[in-house]
Amino acid sequence: MTNCVLCKDNLKPEEGEIIWRGDDCRVILVNDPDLPGFCRVVWNRHVAEMTDLTHGERDHLMNLVFAVEEAIRHVMHPDKVNIATLGNMVPHIHWHVIPRFKDDAFFPGSAWSKKTQETHEGKLAMREEQALQLPDTIRAIIANLY
Amino acid sequence: MTNCVLCKDNLKPEEGEIIWRGDDCRVILVNDPDLPGFCRVVWNRHVAEMTDLTHGERDHLMNLVFAVEEAIRHVMHPDKVNIATLGNMVPHIHWHVIPRFKDDAFFPGSAWSKKTQETHEGKLAMREEQALQLPDTIRAIIANLY
Repeated sequence: MTNCVLCKDNLKPEEGEIIWRGDDCRVILVNDPDLPGFCRVVWNRHVAEMTDLTHGERDHLMNLVFAVEEAIRHVMHPDKVNIATLGNMVPHIHWHVIPRFKDDAFFPGSAWSKKTQETHEGKLAMREEQALQLPDTIRAIIANLY
Repeated sequence: MTNCVLCKDNLKPEEGEIIWRGDDCRVILVNDPDLPGFCRVVWNRHVAEMTDLTHGERDHLMNLVFAVEEAIRHVMHPDKVNIATLGNMVPHIHWHVIPRFKDDAFFPGSAWSKKTQETHEGKLAMREEQALQLPDTIRAIIANLY
């Protein structure tokens, strides 16, 4: 759709980087200063809901989402992983996969909740450093899937 | 775990009702006055992350999540469905499956975002009435899965 930002796929460098691309999906490492390691798995075609996909397409997408979770756990050692597909503003299927830490800006709320605290700068810098390993780790885990 | 509310499974009637129960999962119709039709799919065993499950267990759980989405779309005709597993407060796998409407209390934010508006009472009452069809519809769709 011409007015859908996820159809256009012209990600600005300051928003993040595409770290893997397949025929059906792409994986983005999001640049979120409060939540280093935040990733998105985007379905390439303009589809609004998971149940608009075939069962095979759903499986494929969820395998990628869980591959990203696996990489995030391996690289970032988060206290929790959050996974969500909302799409209220952009009704084009995209999954958020977010490493969460007890000292992150929104914990224990959702990443869309009110900010509750400031994370120590050194901790944030360390996590940004760790997140640099995510692209290679995600690509390796996805390569092993198929 | 003894201190986990989702292990105890003593749902109070004012919190919602269990509408389907299997060996591994249960489905709850949540009583949320702002979001009629809000459902949860809970993994029965105490497990924190999706990647702690086997691939077969993940597929089973996601099939149930998408069965609930299918029922919600059929019964409630929402503008969007939101699906999320967070677990920051209760690290025991549970998926939220939420029908969202452009005039609901939190739209276009997440169900955990700040309230943005009041929904017309008549609309809310109509959606609560529709949600009464969810238990039977969800059970019928799950019965067809296996």
